[in-house]
Amino acid sequence: MKNVAIVGYGNLGKACERAALLSEDMSIVGIFSRRKGLSSPYGTSIYAQDEIFDMAKDIDVAALCLGSANDLVAFGTSLAGKVNTVDSFDTHAKMRDYVQNMRASASAGGKLSLVGIGWDPGIFSLCRALFEGVLPDGFTHTFWGKGVSQGHSEALRRIDGVLDAIQYTVPKQEAIDLATKGKGEELTERDKHLRVCYIAAKEGADLKKIEESVRTMPNYFEPYDVEIHFVDVQTLKREHGGMPHGGQVLRSGYANGKGCTMKLELKLDSNPDFTAGVLMRYAAACARLNEEGVCGAKTMLDVPVSALYQNDAALRFV
Amino acid sequence: MKNVAIVGYGNLGKACERAALLSEDMSIVGIFSRRKGLSSPYGTSIYAQDEIFDMAKDIDVAALCLGSANDLVAFGTSLAGKVNTVDSFDTHAKMRDYVQNMRASASAGGKLSLVGIGWDPGIFSLCRALFEGVLPDGFTHTFWGKGVSQGHSEALRRIDGVLDAIQYTVPKQEAIDLATKGKGEELTERDKHLRVCYIAAKEGADLKKIEESVRTMPNYFEPYDVEIHFVDVQTLKREHGGMPHGGQVLRSGYANGKGCTMKLELKLDSNPDFTAGVLMRYAAACARLNEEGVCGAKTMLDVPVSALYQNDAALRFV
Repeated sequence: MKNVAIVGYGNLGKACERAALLSEDMSIVGIFSRRKGLSSPYGTSIYAQDEIFDMAKDIDVAALCLGSANDLVAFGTSLAGKVNTVDSFDTHAKMRDYVQNMRASASAGGKLSLVGIGWDPGIFSLCRALFEGVLPDGFTHTFWGKGVSQGHSEALRRIDGVLDAIQYTVPKQEAIDLATKGKGEELTERDKHLRVCYIAAKEGADLKKIEESVRTMPNYFEPYDVEIHFVDVQTLKREHGGMPHGGQVLRSGYANGKGCTMKLELKLDSNPDFTAGVLMRYAAACARLNEEGVCGAKTMLDVPVSALYQNDAALRFV
Repeated sequence: MKNVAIVGYGNLGKACERAALLSEDMSIVGIFSRRKGLSSPYGTSIYAQDEIFDMAKDIDVAALCLGSANDLVAFGTSLAGKVNTVDSFDTHAKMRDYVQNMRASASAGGKLSLVGIGWDPGIFSLCRALFEGVLPDGFTHTFWGKGVSQGHSEALRRIDGVLDAIQYTVPKQEAIDLATKGKGEELTERDKHLRVCYIAAKEGADLKKIEESVRTMPNYFEPYDVEIHFVDVQTLKREHGGMPHGGQVLRSGYANGKGCTMKLELKLDSNPDFTAGVLMRYAAACARLNEEGVCGAKTMLDVPVSALYQNDAALRFV
C-alpha cells in the first residue's frame, strides 16, 4: 500500500483523488492546497500546501497537480528530494531545464521525481521516441483532438465581452491522410488543426469585436483556421461541459527502403480522468523504484514499462 | 561504432545485414551460419556458426536470426554470457523459461541479452503492458494482419500435393469495431481473424483433398474461417511474393468510469525488414547498456525507450 499526497485540487487533482480512491494499492494521506475553505466530497483531509513538508516522512509519493507551469516549477523543485514526486509538467519548451533542476534536487535528497507523466507529454512522448528510435528513416506527426484545449478555452474567456467559452482542437483528416502516406513533411500548423470555438457572450457585447479578437490572437488562434459559434451559456454548459480529448502520433517511413507506418491513437471521454490514471500508476511505480534505490528525475522515456508491474509480472504481456 | 555479428542467414538475417549496412553506427563483423556455401551480395564475410565463439572478443553484439525456436533456444543459451545478444524469440508460451535461462547465462558472463525484440513480441508487447499498466480497468485485444504468416504458409507447404503457398492473416473489421467499443470480451479466434490461403498445387493433385487437409488442420486452420484460392505458381510468385504484415493492439476501458480507447497500429510493407530495423536499433542499445554495466536478460519492457538514444537526446521527444 502506497501513501499518496495530492498537491493542488483543480480538475487534475480531483481526478487523482478519484483514481487513488479506486486503487487497491493506494491510500491518500491528504490533499494539499493553497486555497482555503476547500472540502472533499469523499471526506479526504485537506491541508495547507506547505504542510506537506512537515508530513514528508508519512508520504511515499506526491502527485503534483498544480494549475500553472510556474507554480509547478517553483513548488516541484522545492519539494523534490524531500518526497518522491510525479507530475504532468507540460511546457515542452522548458522540459529540459525543469528535468535538470528536478534531477539536482531529487538526487541530493535520495528521492525520485517522475516528470511529464500523462499522455502528452507522456505516452505520446514515449511513442514519438520509440517510433523514431526503431524507424530512423521517416517523419513523425502529432495530431491532437478532437478535444477541449484548456489553454485555448482560457484564452477565449479572457477576451472582453466573453462570459464563458470552450475551444475544441480538431485535426484535419486531409493532413492525417497525407502524413499516413509519408507526404506530410511540408504541413503547416494551419494545415493540421482547426480550432472550433463555442462562445457565450455577455449581454450587449460586440460579437464582431469578439470574433476579431479571437481571429487575430497571436500564437493561440492567428496561425489557424478558426470556426466561431456564439451560443447561450445554458447550451454551452449542456452540450460542451465534458473534457474529451485524444489524438495520434503517426510515423511514416522506411525500413531498408520498405514502407512502414506506426500509429498510436488515444480517444478519451475525459482528459483529466485519463491523465490522473496515468499519473497514479506512475506514482505507484515511482514509490517502488525509489524503494529499490532509484533516485533523480526521470521522464516516462527513462522508466521501463515493466516498472508499472511488480516482479516479473510484465512478462505475461510479451 | 558497434561491431555486429549476424547469426543465421534467412529472411531476417538478410534484412539485418541490409539494416546494419545502412546504419552509420554499425560495422558487420560477419555472418555466422550452419549452412555451407553461402555468399553475401554485399561481400560480407560468412563464417561457420560456431566460429563466433572464437571471435567473441571482436563482437559488441550478436543478432540471433535463427529460423526455428529450438535452434534459437539452444544456440542463444550457449552464446549468452560470452557475447551481448539480441533476438526476436517469438514463442509466447515459452518466453518465461527462455528469459530465465538467458538471464542465468548472460549474468554469469557479465553480458546483456535482449530477447523478444521485434514487433510481436516487441513493440506490441510493450504497448499491451503500457496500456494495461495505465488503464487497469479494460480489455486488450491484439489483431494481426493483413499480412503473411510464415508459420501458416509453411504449414500449407507441408500438405501433400502442395507446390507452394502463401497464407494471409486478415483481421475481421466487425471484431475490431466491437473491441473498439469495449464489447470484445467474448470474441473467439474465429471471430477475430480470417485465414486466406493462396495455394499452387502440384500437377494432378487432388484439390478437394488439399482443401480438406487445410480446413481440418488443428490449431493452424481448424479454429478459423478459411478462404482457399488455387492459383498457378507464376501468379503466386508475382502477386504474393512480398512479406507485408502489421496489426494493432487495442485497449478499451475506463478511467474513473470515463471511456478511453488506446490503439497502436503498424502497417508494414515488409515484415522482415521492419523487424530487422527494430532488432538492429536494440542491438546498438544493448551494446551501449552493457558498456554502462547493465547485464542479464531483458525484454523490450525492461529497457527504457531512452536507451535507444545517447545521453539526454531522448528529451527532445518529451
